[in-house]
Amino acid sequence: MSSPTSRRASIGAVRNPESDAAILEAARALLEERGYADFSLSEVARRAHASKPTLYRRWPNKAALIFELYKAGHSERLSAPLQGELIQDMTAIVLALWRFWRETPTGPALRGLIAEAQSEASAIETLRQIYSPSSPKMARARIEHAIALGELAPNFDTDSALMLIMAFNWSQLLTNQIDDEAAVAPVLKLIFTSHPR
Amino acid sequence: MSSPTSRRASIGAVRNPESDAAILEAARALLEERGYADFSLSEVARRAHASKPTLYRRWPNKAALIFELYKAGHSERLSAPLQGELIQDMTAIVLALWRFWRETPTGPALRGLIAEAQSEASAIETLRQIYSPSSPKMARARIEHAIALGELAPNFDTDSALMLIMAFNWSQLLTNQIDDEAAVAPVLKLIFTSHPR
Repeated sequence: MSSPTSRRASIGAVRNPESDAAILEAARALLEERGYADFSLSEVARRAHASKPTLYRRWPNKAALIFELYKAGHSERLSAPLQGELIQDMTAIVLALWRFWRETPTGPALRGLIAEAQSEASAIETLRQIYSPSSPKMARARIEHAIALGELAPNFDTDSALMLIMAFNWSQLLTNQIDDEAAVAPVLKLIFTSHPR
Repeated sequence: MSSPTSRRASIGAVRNPESDAAILEAARALLEERGYADFSLSEVARRAHASKPTLYRRWPNKAALIFELYKAGHSERLSAPLQGELIQDMTAIVLALWRFWRETPTGPALRGLIAEAQSEASAIETLRQIYSPSSPKMARARIEHAIALGELAPNFDTDSALMLIMAFNWSQLLTNQIDDEAAVAPVLKLIFTSHPR
């Protein structure tokens, strides 16, 4: 039986944080080793010594587990040097993401997830969570800072700006052009220029 | 031997326009019937009574032939009512494209092509041709008209604007949200507002 503490801390089913960590670690290693296409939940369960029902209760499909890794990787390892000027900072944030996608399995994983979602309805929901204006935290914080400073008008449409930037990042990733770093600044200039307070 | 006329009219290998038309017609019917995943060049050759070498000489892979259909469909059947005001017209152009993607096999074909290109290098080149600022003719013409009229500044960055609009369209298509018509105008407003002459 679970303790009152773990019952309070968990919204859904009671989770074992140790086994969650083992599963995520096994998943990360497997993704790094095999890539998206050959990644399977049953192999993750085997490596983490977890039961398949445990794993499936927590992550109903491959896309959901990959998404968890994807989010964790971003919040742990993604950082950009911020210099002060809006377009310069936004460019640094986008380039840090592109570099992160190139240098870790997250880039290929997102490509695999997008490909899978075109024929697999269960992956579409996960994809929509990624493609949501609440998803890019660092970029949102920088825009809100710009609004507070008066660099952008108070009614600047932050959600639309973030959607456009994410869409641009995806298209560059999907056409294998996230090394074309010169493409970033002009696009951001178009989004952020001439929206003065 | 080919006639001087056909030699002058053709840049690469001499083509037989009748057999090209038969191949494209067979390809269009097959795509409509089976979708991207079950579309094959050999089945197109069989239906069009064309030899496989003929077909492969002209379209080296499935992606290239689908792209030809995709372009032909757009220029033949895509039209939008233009009212005069820039954002309203651009919205009409994007919505006409979304409706076209929903109501013809072009939407599912583009989704299939993007998915395939994530693991098949030969399809990436075709995808880059689609995701090029020279690709959306109607939108480009409307923006150039706006610059000529003074609705937009003479140095408005048309290429970046078109890239952003295409990227947005793709992301909506890939997340199965090209029926969310209310999402279009705010995004276009962000791109086109406050760039006065």
